[in-house]
Amino acid sequence: MSTFTQEPHKLLLIPGPIELSDEVLYANATPPMPHTGADFIPIFGDAIRMTREVVQTQTGQPFLIAGSGTLGWDQVAANLIEPGEDALLLNCGYFGDSFADCLRAYGANVDEIRADFGKSVTQPELEAALKAKKYKLVCFTHVDTSTAVLSDAKMIGETCKRLAPESLVILDGVCSVASEEIKMDEWNIDVVLSASQKGLGAPPGLCVVIASQKAIKVNEVRKAPIAGFYSSWKRWLPIMQAYEAGKPAYFATPPVNLIRAYQVSLTQITKSPTISLQDRFELHRKAALRVRHAATELGLKLVPVDPHYTANGMTAIYLPEGLGVADVVPRMAQRGIIVTGGIHKVNKDKYFRIGHMGVSVVHPERGDIAKAIAGMQEALQEALASKKATLAAKESYKPSPVRNPAVPRAYPRSIAVVSARL
Amino acid sequence: MSTFTQEPHKLLLIPGPIELSDEVLYANATPPMPHTGADFIPIFGDAIRMTREVVQTQTGQPFLIAGSGTLGWDQVAANLIEPGEDALLLNCGYFGDSFADCLRAYGANVDEIRADFGKSVTQPELEAALKAKKYKLVCFTHVDTSTAVLSDAKMIGETCKRLAPESLVILDGVCSVASEEIKMDEWNIDVVLSASQKGLGAPPGLCVVIASQKAIKVNEVRKAPIAGFYSSWKRWLPIMQAYEAGKPAYFATPPVNLIRAYQVSLTQITKSPTISLQDRFELHRKAALRVRHAATELGLKLVPVDPHYTANGMTAIYLPEGLGVADVVPRMAQRGIIVTGGIHKVNKDKYFRIGHMGVSVVHPERGDIAKAIAGMQEALQEALASKKATLAAKESYKPSPVRNPAVPRAYPRSIAVVSARL
Repeated sequence: MSTFTQEPHKLLLIPGPIELSDEVLYANATPPMPHTGADFIPIFGDAIRMTREVVQTQTGQPFLIAGSGTLGWDQVAANLIEPGEDALLLNCGYFGDSFADCLRAYGANVDEIRADFGKSVTQPELEAALKAKKYKLVCFTHVDTSTAVLSDAKMIGETCKRLAPESLVILDGVCSVASEEIKMDEWNIDVVLSASQKGLGAPPGLCVVIASQKAIKVNEVRKAPIAGFYSSWKRWLPIMQAYEAGKPAYFATPPVNLIRAYQVSLTQITKSPTISLQDRFELHRKAALRVRHAATELGLKLVPVDPHYTANGMTAIYLPEGLGVADVVPRMAQRGIIVTGGIHKVNKDKYFRIGHMGVSVVHPERGDIAKAIAGMQEALQEALASKKATLAAKESYKPSPVRNPAVPRAYPRSIAVVSARL
Repeated sequence: MSTFTQEPHKLLLIPGPIELSDEVLYANATPPMPHTGADFIPIFGDAIRMTREVVQTQTGQPFLIAGSGTLGWDQVAANLIEPGEDALLLNCGYFGDSFADCLRAYGANVDEIRADFGKSVTQPELEAALKAKKYKLVCFTHVDTSTAVLSDAKMIGETCKRLAPESLVILDGVCSVASEEIKMDEWNIDVVLSASQKGLGAPPGLCVVIASQKAIKVNEVRKAPIAGFYSSWKRWLPIMQAYEAGKPAYFATPPVNLIRAYQVSLTQITKSPTISLQDRFELHRKAALRVRHAATELGLKLVPVDPHYTANGMTAIYLPEGLGVADVVPRMAQRGIIVTGGIHKVNKDKYFRIGHMGVSVVHPERGDIAKAIAGMQEALQEALASKKATLAAKESYKPSPVRNPAVPRAYPRSIAVVSARL
């Protein structure tokens, strides 16, 4: 095990999948274990217990099921929505839209509070909605991967407790679990749904859901049958309970390699002798600050409007006017750093996204963040220089204003600003 | 890559997960690739194309989605069943029962033809059912992992074509794809559903479904909305088409490591310069014959009643009367060979199951099958000797017939038979 070193590769700094430790990758390559065997059962049990620790719950019930994070939405909708029931969705971007689509696919009546691009839903907006109507579910994306906007989970949970104590509060934590603090019990969160490939530090393919006992109960007393088979908590609950109790059980074959990799990652996250879970959150905050600082130093604007509502596991940065994703992201890739463009339908070519989660921030000795910042600076500089050269060539061509009136006469202002700072 | 060797481990001969090649395991441990990046897209595209080859279809549409094989049932039910529609299920065991449960969870009216334990549904039974009623779906388990019974996929597909040409024929191939021949187009099969961890030779966690264009069309014109989000073919179809066309697309993050491992395994399966797909099926047939022969040589009976309807990727063998799973399976494990007990609810302690799929049969130089046979012989011999000793001790104790009338007076007959042959 100690001799395994992962292949050389470009630094993966997208908002998931992320850079993984050698130990996690090696666990993913161990020969498959029999899924109901004595070696695997305690690994699965451990993974369940440590999942609770990460979201700070005593009584929440983890469900670890092969699938993408998207399957977490289906679990929420299939188990907790009966046709025609009302759900409120606090929508901060692309993933809010998709979560709403999923709820509607199961017959939910979804009301949305749509935040402007780069903003999150405010407490007064939430209060007004909860006073106006009773909702079975109040759903929000903790960090919307499309915008890097961080919602205030504590405020949302507590506001619901005060104004809508019967509602179930659903936190989509695909891009927040293990990079943002979540106090599931204390903040009145009923479901946290996530996936293995972001802050949780494992390869993609494991859907991670934690449901409060209140949510489990709501599912148990529902009138309509559960709207699914693979996503049914009733079918999975005895399986998860058995594995945790050290006993074999079977509903569907678990992804044994991935659960082992996930268990190794959770061990690194929750049992580190030197870095506590609180330290981990703090390291993510520091890395995010560093990236944001570097961006603003370059004169770039962040997508999230308010620094208090900005994710700590990723950053979304506007490109200077005149530059598109294709000008910058491939230039960072040439420097060995993989970041990605926008995803929000309106603005996707106007900004790019950097992920900074897991080992890249918890082990600063790797130098990942410094490399990302240097890469960003160089790529922008080169892109701007190239753009200037193109514009200058066009200028010197001096086309007739009648033949081609659209050619810009000067560099766009924001290119000039960024250029001056580089 | 060439230097990676998997950890020493016991020989995994259950009916999935199975023994994997070093190359497949190493692929599972490569650093995650960005899921819409230029390196990953052709890997996904290749995996899609090679999936078609394995089930011998020209036009079938593969769906490769993170999940267990069970998710394949959900895909069939969510996309192809509208509430109240009729499905016929040819039931040969535990997995037939579960498939029926899944169809019913989506509102299907399921009629079952239940074969006796160890038998498959016959052509006259199927013909009678198809003449009596019109079914939207005709579903069957190609190999029921609980019994090792192999259904006659060709007969079922052709009978449906003749008597129920509008029905969709659904083959549950979790335990058959790549270990049993399937000619999807020629045999009139509309959906093949499977999972990565058996004949397909990869770790568990990838649900593999191939749908005919007829099935895709039936889904497109359905009246009720698709009963799910994550399992919706309408959402996944453009994604699969894009990856195959070499273009990025996003619906949910694919399990990039596992798809890479699966692609490596499919390359070994479909592009081997020395072992064709036909050779592969033949090698599975030979290995199965060898295991069955060894079992019958020991005087043991097979669960499948008819050798023509017996799986080639696994074998289910009755224990001699007087011995239970706990007498034999742990003794094989002590010899480094992992097999497993029964799973069918009625008889699960009366038989055990040996898996023989993938590298264990395609590379006979590994000696896996020989080890399994020797391990079975030794474990049975030891178990019988131990049972005899226990019985002899009880005999010599000579308890009063009044105090303990249940103590057997002699070894059960089948122990004596097996004992004589060992």
